[in-house]
Amino acid sequence: MHYELREEVYWANMELHIQKLAIYTWGNASGIDREAGIIAIKPSGLAYEELRPEMIVLVDLEGKVVDGELKPSSDTATHIELYRAFVKVGGVVHTHSPHATAWAQARQPLPCYGTTHADYFHGEVPVTTMLTDAEIDGDYEAETGKAIVKKFREAGLKPEEMPAVLSAGHGPFTWGKNAEEAVCNAVVLEEAARMAMMTEGICRQAEAIPGKLLDKHFLRKHGPGAYYGQGEEHV
Amino acid sequence: MHYELREEVYWANMELHIQKLAIYTWGNASGIDREAGIIAIKPSGLAYEELRPEMIVLVDLEGKVVDGELKPSSDTATHIELYRAFVKVGGVVHTHSPHATAWAQARQPLPCYGTTHADYFHGEVPVTTMLTDAEIDGDYEAETGKAIVKKFREAGLKPEEMPAVLSAGHGPFTWGKNAEEAVCNAVVLEEAARMAMMTEGICRQAEAIPGKLLDKHFLRKHGPGAYYGQGEEHV
Amino acid sequence: MHYELREEVYWANMELHIQKLAIYTWGNASGIDREAGIIAIKPSGLAYEELRPEMIVLVDLEGKVVDGELKPSSDTATHIELYRAFVKVGGVVHTHSPHATAWAQARQPLPCYGTTHADYFHGEVPVTTMLTDAEIDGDYEAETGKAIVKKFREAGLKPEEMPAVLSAGHGPFTWGKNAEEAVCNAVVLEEAARMAMMTEGICRQAEAIPGKLLDKHFLRKHGPGAYYGQGEEHV
Amino acid sequence: MHYELREEVYWANMELHIQKLAIYTWGNASGIDREAGIIAIKPSGLAYEELRPEMIVLVDLEGKVVDGELKPSSDTATHIELYRAFVKVGGVVHTHSPHATAWAQARQPLPCYGTTHADYFHGEVPVTTMLTDAEIDGDYEAETGKAIVKKFREAGLKPEEMPAVLSAGHGPFTWGKNAEEAVCNAVVLEEAARMAMMTEGICRQAEAIPGKLLDKHFLRKHGPGAYYGQGEEHV
Repeated sequence: MHYELREEVYWANMELHIQKLAIYTWGNASGIDREAGIIAIKPSGLAYEELRPEMIVLVDLEGKVVDGELKPSSDTATHIELYRAFVKVGGVVHTHSPHATAWAQARQPLPCYGTTHADYFHGEVPVTTMLTDAEIDGDYEAETGKAIVKKFREAGLKPEEMPAVLSAGHGPFTWGKNAEEAVCNAVVLEEAARMAMMTEGICRQAEAIPGKLLDKHFLRKHGPGAYYGQGEEHV
Repeated sequence: MHYELREEVYWANMELHIQKLAIYTWGNASGIDREAGIIAIKPSGLAYEELRPEMIVLVDLEGKVVDGELKPSSDTATHIELYRAFVKVGGVVHTHSPHATAWAQARQPLPCYGTTHADYFHGEVPVTTMLTDAEIDGDYEAETGKAIVKKFREAGLKPEEMPAVLSAGHGPFTWGKNAEEAVCNAVVLEEAARMAMMTEGICRQAEAIPGKLLDKHFLRKHGPGAYYGQGEEHV
Repeated sequence: MHYELREEVYWANMELHIQKLAIYTWGNASGIDREAGIIAIKPSGLAYEELRPEMIVLVDLEGKVVDGELKPSSDTATHIELYRAFVKVGGVVHTHSPHATAWAQARQPLPCYGTTHADYFHGEVPVTTMLTDAEIDGDYEAETGKAIVKKFREAGLKPEEMPAVLSAGHGPFTWGKNAEEAVCNAVVLEEAARMAMMTEGICRQAEAIPGKLLDKHFLRKHGPGAYYGQGEEHV
Repeated sequence: MHYELREEVYWANMELHIQKLAIYTWGNASGIDREAGIIAIKPSGLAYEELRPEMIVLVDLEGKVVDGELKPSSDTATHIELYRAFVKVGGVVHTHSPHATAWAQARQPLPCYGTTHADYFHGEVPVTTMLTDAEIDGDYEAETGKAIVKKFREAGLKPEEMPAVLSAGHGPFTWGKNAEEAVCNAVVLEEAARMAMMTEGICRQAEAIPGKLLDKHFLRKHGPGAYYGQGEEHV
């Protein structure tokens, strides 16, 4: 079932490991078939070295396993909340990549200090509010997703323009039109987080780039007026 | 003698080198056969490139060499103190991994700033009190172990829930149910130490995660209620 | 057309990737045939893994594509401004290498704290003034180049003695007698930026090296009195 | 001539590159035949990829080339000063390794914050006084060596117990009983410099380890009472 989606999600997970965003069993990537309402996701607690395409688990939007012999990722409920609320998203990634995680642990949004960041994220990357004890005691992984969605609703953020969030005290989640793009955003988020940390190390009073420059860079790569690259057929 | 234990301890030592936690002759891993009272440990001052399984030295709990042509690690007495006091521990590791060592050198416990840390260590990782001149002049390596045990007794820490310590001015020791798990804990400690340093770099007033979140993450991976992973048969 | 120049520019681009100064499609290197007035440059938005020598685009000094099936780099207009103003330059490189970019994001010139820096850059590496909204709305990439040239004119800097600049809120540009030397300067700039950041981390009141030492090191490698190396035939 | 010494010095130089202490043509290692008064040293400005054992240059203690077709390292005069003053030294290394160089650029001695450092360097690693303009204008490379020797004489340091120095605004020099040991000390110095920087990052009031612990670790590896390792035949 869903052989291609599984294959794609398998490679997205492997890329997390290859790009050094995830060691041991950490991190997970998923992709969704919107028409069928089927999510393909990494199995729980499996080392990347042991992962095979056929081990990718299929679940529906209620979290019920549809196909696969293994338990799905313990973070599956978080992915589902994101797929439900962000209806154009086709892939979701969670990592503990060190620099992005450090910002999540510091519970601070990631400022946009430069065009590297602006090329992918249209403004500062938000950080969620720390979960309450009741939320942690409840359906923890689903609450993690709900806190992200709540943050985006309150701040008026569009998931298409801000494909990343820092989960307070935990780590980053990223997304994209498919699992591969979500991984790419996870890689760039880690790099932007690293550069921002160093920028503040050099100058504590560092300032975000002007809104005009932010728009210029984001929009030269995204949306109808984009002119970066060779056009869709080449990407 | 004890071929399997030697092989296991050999690979644990090599993993320290492969994971870049130990260069040259630094670091050492050991494992114990509790029934026989036999510890297998790296020989002293040997480069990882030269290490072979048959070179692993067997010592008893008094530190007497039982089998092996080489001298055991100069830190053997520290390992023995830990095996004696922490009776469920099956493997011990010592490294000079840079970030964990930096915290040991700063003589500060490693705060739990996030779930990455909480997944493996149930609270802040303690740091020992600096040895007195008399302790250094005495049986130094055994005193290093005794200082760790004393710290755990005084702080009421359980070695099963806190499989790591920072030896003041020296470096980390970690342990686990066997040598392989002790190495894994050394890798994660290094990563948690790195993230914590960066977290404080971003925000000097960084706060430890709430106790509820700490418990949630530690207990979803450890103990009777654990639901992370595929169950014992898969780990 | 211009097979050798394309080959040279191809390898310069690949070297950016190999030296880890550029991931995905980031960064670009170009070279110029001064007699023909032809610039060879990386195509826009192409991943290094997919790049082949024949894909290198040829443009003239007006930015018109002379040969090649792909669109040239979106930063082509910046390269052209530099070639026009700095008439001895034979190659230009742009990267988002993390440490140099952090200085650009902090909008601070890179101080010359040591001889490593002085061997390649005759003084502190300048940072441009942030572009105005009008400049960003205008011919953005050309304005980026003009801001660099303006900085050099105002500060009385010679491009031959200072083959690098930090574009504010953006990242570094470097140049040299050809594309290969421009890449080398990009690598060294990244290393000098990293060392300078650490130098200030160790000592906030770090001081630039004395002018005499700066001159000694720059001039022992460059100009008529140079005595470092084996002479031109060996470089 | 001196085939074995050349081979040994060749490998020491390559090790600098392999251990990532030197890129491009940076850094140099040398070894001496004390009886013959012959020093073997890297040629000037040659990339490590091009280096071959037969290219190693032989010079005498006056700096005169005795054998070899290439010019010796531009730092040869510094090496010679060290060999002359430190009569038990058999190998010298100079690098621009980033962390050690950052301390040299900050013009601060490297404090001994832990046993990793104490295992190799008996106390804080000294930093030289910045050269005067007259010294820079004079025989610069020889003056660099003389400043090191002067520092050791004034501080009463023994080269055998402190096989490293930070040359102010420049970078580290290390030495040992041969070129191989000098390289090892360069690797450890870089690691100790990195750990010390991080230690101060975690705690600005970090303290050097007690003298008793310093002595214990240095002396368990060096001198007549050493018990670390397998004895001389195994090193």
